[in-house]
Amino acid sequence: MARMKNALYFQSGGVTAVIGATAAALIETHQHQSQGTLYAAENGFAGLLNAQLVNASALPLAMRAALSQIPGGGLGSGRTLMQPYDENPLQWQRVHEVLLAYEIGTVYVNGGNGSMDTAVKLVELSQRFNLPLKVIGLPKTIDNDLEGTDTSPGFGSALKYLSVSLMEAARDHCAMATKPSVFIMEVMGRHTGWLAACGAVARLPVQMASPRILFPEVVFEPERFIKGVQASFAKHNACVCVVSEGIRTVDGQFYAQQNVAGRYGHEQLGGAGFAVAELLRARLGIKVHVAVPDYLQRAARHLASATDIAQAEAVAVHAVHLAEQGQSGVMVNIVRDNDVPYAWHCDAVPLADIANRERLFPIDWVHQEAYTVTPEALRYLKPLIQGEPRQVWADGLPDYPWVDWPPAEN
Amino acid sequence: MARMKNALYFQSGGVTAVIGATAAALIETHQHQSQGTLYAAENGFAGLLNAQLVNASALPLAMRAALSQIPGGGLGSGRTLMQPYDENPLQWQRVHEVLLAYEIGTVYVNGGNGSMDTAVKLVELSQRFNLPLKVIGLPKTIDNDLEGTDTSPGFGSALKYLSVSLMEAARDHCAMATKPSVFIMEVMGRHTGWLAACGAVARLPVQMASPRILFPEVVFEPERFIKGVQASFAKHNACVCVVSEGIRTVDGQFYAQQNVAGRYGHEQLGGAGFAVAELLRARLGIKVHVAVPDYLQRAARHLASATDIAQAEAVAVHAVHLAEQGQSGVMVNIVRDNDVPYAWHCDAVPLADIANRERLFPIDWVHQEAYTVTPEALRYLKPLIQGEPRQVWADGLPDYPWVDWPPAEN
Repeated sequence: MARMKNALYFQSGGVTAVIGATAAALIETHQHQSQGTLYAAENGFAGLLNAQLVNASALPLAMRAALSQIPGGGLGSGRTLMQPYDENPLQWQRVHEVLLAYEIGTVYVNGGNGSMDTAVKLVELSQRFNLPLKVIGLPKTIDNDLEGTDTSPGFGSALKYLSVSLMEAARDHCAMATKPSVFIMEVMGRHTGWLAACGAVARLPVQMASPRILFPEVVFEPERFIKGVQASFAKHNACVCVVSEGIRTVDGQFYAQQNVAGRYGHEQLGGAGFAVAELLRARLGIKVHVAVPDYLQRAARHLASATDIAQAEAVAVHAVHLAEQGQSGVMVNIVRDNDVPYAWHCDAVPLADIANRERLFPIDWVHQEAYTVTPEALRYLKPLIQGEPRQVWADGLPDYPWVDWPPAEN
Repeated sequence: MARMKNALYFQSGGVTAVIGATAAALIETHQHQSQGTLYAAENGFAGLLNAQLVNASALPLAMRAALSQIPGGGLGSGRTLMQPYDENPLQWQRVHEVLLAYEIGTVYVNGGNGSMDTAVKLVELSQRFNLPLKVIGLPKTIDNDLEGTDTSPGFGSALKYLSVSLMEAARDHCAMATKPSVFIMEVMGRHTGWLAACGAVARLPVQMASPRILFPEVVFEPERFIKGVQASFAKHNACVCVVSEGIRTVDGQFYAQQNVAGRYGHEQLGGAGFAVAELLRARLGIKVHVAVPDYLQRAARHLASATDIAQAEAVAVHAVHLAEQGQSGVMVNIVRDNDVPYAWHCDAVPLADIANRERLFPIDWVHQEAYTVTPEALRYLKPLIQGEPRQVWADGLPDYPWVDWPPAEN
């Protein structure tokens, strides 16, 4: 068992603009501070099950530098999670085999709250099979819904992208609003409205109506909302709305589902922006434009937050430290020391405090009458979008090469 | 009549990320080279009719510098056009009055092919009323559908934005494609596929399937398209598609309208991406994500093309030169001197050669089997996205202040 000298890294759940920065920093730190090889599983936990492993330690330096800037992370993530032992003992057996075969003594799980449950189960597996396994979680989610951390890498960049995009589209919309009209941007967030807060982070001139934000945490009341939209028209005929994909009506139903049922099927949520647009067109007879950035909002590496990039790297560096200290069953978290200037450091929280929990946007940070957020919310949010990335441009485009991962040998 | 010493500028039609650069350059050049005051009409031609004029010449220097970077142009555009004299003589009379009242001897019309028809009518008006009026058109359209010019300011920036966005979203999509799945980006272009060509301009690694582009100029054949999508899955399960909002079926109908009729009403076209997604889900049972950048694609000043910005400014400088030379009834055009390195200069073309005409994406630049474009098309397109803008950032966001236009006195 003393020979379990290697480590394994995998990504799990939706990817981000800066997840490659975490991967690259983990590889670099592991090379400097740890014995053994750092493997990485392709396509998340499924890659562990299928022993689709690559030798991350052998990644050439130039490729590692490129990896740091590639949106989506260049490794492949996945949504397969580890099941309870009783439900799938063969799955546990399979994980055990792969860990033994590759002599893996440390697993780094880079994901969100569902992924941290898989990390918890890996700790249980080490106990059940009496394996000397250390399990360290690394936070990652654009939704910012992980408990126990000030923020999660991926969120600040998505928030910055959406805020800038809204500022730009709002100016376009205002220039075209010769009659009352609405621009809607639909943002991700099935259950939590952290990204919808871009409507308040976006800095619009006071001459323009401030964006109306619809949060999933606040029951959507069409009649009240329509009045709010009409009030916005006093300023230059223009109303900008940010609609979270997960807004719900008073009966708890997703508004998109209620209105779009039978149209697009139910494979993915979505369409809340169009449903609200339809409501406004029908009731007010006005022109409504809808933007749905979809993947663009979590992939826009060219507009990432430098603060977010720094945190994406720092959680990796700290994860290796924790493993070297012999810790296990913890997730690296980000602790805020100060708002302005923003100061933070990395620490650790028990995985059990995080797994499967969901951190909602605080309801007392929502200014419900004005469809915006409170100053306290802005004090929290603004530091996370600070700083612009150094971007490598080649021939008018960013350079996002394919990552040729060296094969794993065992 | 000799006292018609002033000039008037207005924007017309959809705005762009760089239309503010044209406005700012026109103001600056006019100050240096022309006598009299440069007025600007708010909200396009309607602002002329309503004498909603501002004194552009009096715009403070710092505000002019800011204007140059504001997406949407900060002045207000509009879709009102000048009607034939026989249909609306009162409208012509009203224009005549305003021109006389403000002693306007030069009108600068910044717009697309519909706006150039209004410019033509202003020339007719000067003849009918025996006014010493010079009319100069300045090109502007993200659709790149203006005849008589190598390209139009606004297009290069929108193309760059869409190309970068597609590169980023494609990497996200590829990282998540554990099973065959499709990412669709719906782009603007009701009749022309210039922006849809972003699917070929985007530089994806050879390890990834190249994006499938659906042009409005090519009849959409669902069965053939489905086969193409399936072929893409051979590379990492991932297929990226660019769908122009204006794709049509063999009967000439908009595909979006055919499939979405009765859903969102018909005020705006749109929904082609969702219609194609619905087709693929129904036929292949796969997961499909759809992004609709909408206004974001024409407002993304932070990702504008430096080449496009330079051209947006150059057309304004040249417009003033033409007016000073006594020319009228022409639009400034951009002439390509060389592909690589891209060399170009400004010249003039008769308005009558441009007005109401539509420059389609050349059908022989479409590689129909591969759903992409030919190398010749890329030689044309690539120079237009070169260079990154100097962007002023403040507190993590670009700085897009409100433009306080000094009032016009007469």
